[in-house]
Amino acid sequence: MRYEERFEAVLKSAASEFARRGYDRASIRDVANAARMSVAGLYYYCKSKDELLFGVCYNSFDFLLRTLQRSLKGVSDPTEQLQIFIFNHFEYFLSHVEAMKVVSHEAGVLSGELGARVAEIKRQYYLRGQQIVQRLLGEGDSDSPHLRTTTLALFGMINWVYTWYRPGRDFDAKELADCVTDLFLHGVRSQAGAGQGQAETHGG
Amino acid sequence: MRYEERFEAVLKSAASEFARRGYDRASIRDVANAARMSVAGLYYYCKSKDELLFGVCYNSFDFLLRTLQRSLKGVSDPTEQLQIFIFNHFEYFLSHVEAMKVVSHEAGVLSGELGARVAEIKRQYYLRGQQIVQRLLGEGDSDSPHLRTTTLALFGMINWVYTWYRPGRDFDAKELADCVTDLFLHGVRSQAGAGQGQAETHGG
Repeated sequence: MRYEERFEAVLKSAASEFARRGYDRASIRDVANAARMSVAGLYYYCKSKDELLFGVCYNSFDFLLRTLQRSLKGVSDPTEQLQIFIFNHFEYFLSHVEAMKVVSHEAGVLSGELGARVAEIKRQYYLRGQQIVQRLLGEGDSDSPHLRTTTLALFGMINWVYTWYRPGRDFDAKELADCVTDLFLHGVRSQAGAGQGQAETHGG
Repeated sequence: MRYEERFEAVLKSAASEFARRGYDRASIRDVANAARMSVAGLYYYCKSKDELLFGVCYNSFDFLLRTLQRSLKGVSDPTEQLQIFIFNHFEYFLSHVEAMKVVSHEAGVLSGELGARVAEIKRQYYLRGQQIVQRLLGEGDSDSPHLRTTTLALFGMINWVYTWYRPGRDFDAKELADCVTDLFLHGVRSQAGAGQGQAETHGG
């Protein structure tokens, strides 16, 4: 296994242990056990528990931003951009629900430079979402509380999923993205207006 | 101070300590200190840390359900019901952001009878929201994944707020409820369609 793959596996184990036990309770040894390596072996990848938490949080946003950038290339229609943004988010997080929980619950634990770097990349991701919402709203003022509330409502819809998602029983990433994109663009009223047909299609 | 008021104050201190330190780290003594009473005095209200967590979670949903019931009396239009549901949620949680964080992060910690009672009242609250969404969608099947996803998207929008809300700088409960209700009913497209006027009004 290459270094990057090994490091990925370490972060996956860290996310799993932090999500299950909580960051405070989980020890470096728990993470090493879950990754099937010695504590000494683990230190080759990360020098502290804080660095592991940093890795889980930073790498999630870094991955999301890179795949998003790639998918948005050449797409100028904000409706399409929204669809891509939501799908990209679900595609990553539905297969990394534990990382999603850790990012949501524990990112604030980090202080100093590690905390600042996570806050900064999180802000970049937020701003990318906000730009899309701003174009959809035709809102000129990027500091408007209406834009902020609407953007954070979108993040609420797509982030809250880690609290309720049941793989194999709920919609997959594509269906979930279609449903949420449609809701965010047109609201429930349009779905009701479209008649029972749509409800039945989705309900099947 | 009457018993109920004193008990309320204890739960407020518990929510505050659990939100700040995490449930695992916070001790009964921390809660007693925050409530400005002795540990012995605290035991008069709650026999264990689990009971404190139970109190914070159960009382939040109990309060939400009771005030919601009262506000929905005689209201049959689902659009109005939605507005009331969202406003009721924000009005409680924007003044109890710490309880909201604890309910979101720690409710799963409780097991046995206490855990079951919290799960049951939470389910009742969820179903009340789902009924309203179901009528808005004109969805016949209460088990449809489309209904479930749409309802949980709504809960995501209104629950995520504890992660970003800044009192005094963000919208108040009424403005927030108006914005989210409008978004959930009609989507961003209608807001853009309504022209810059609306964006400017909200943005002012």
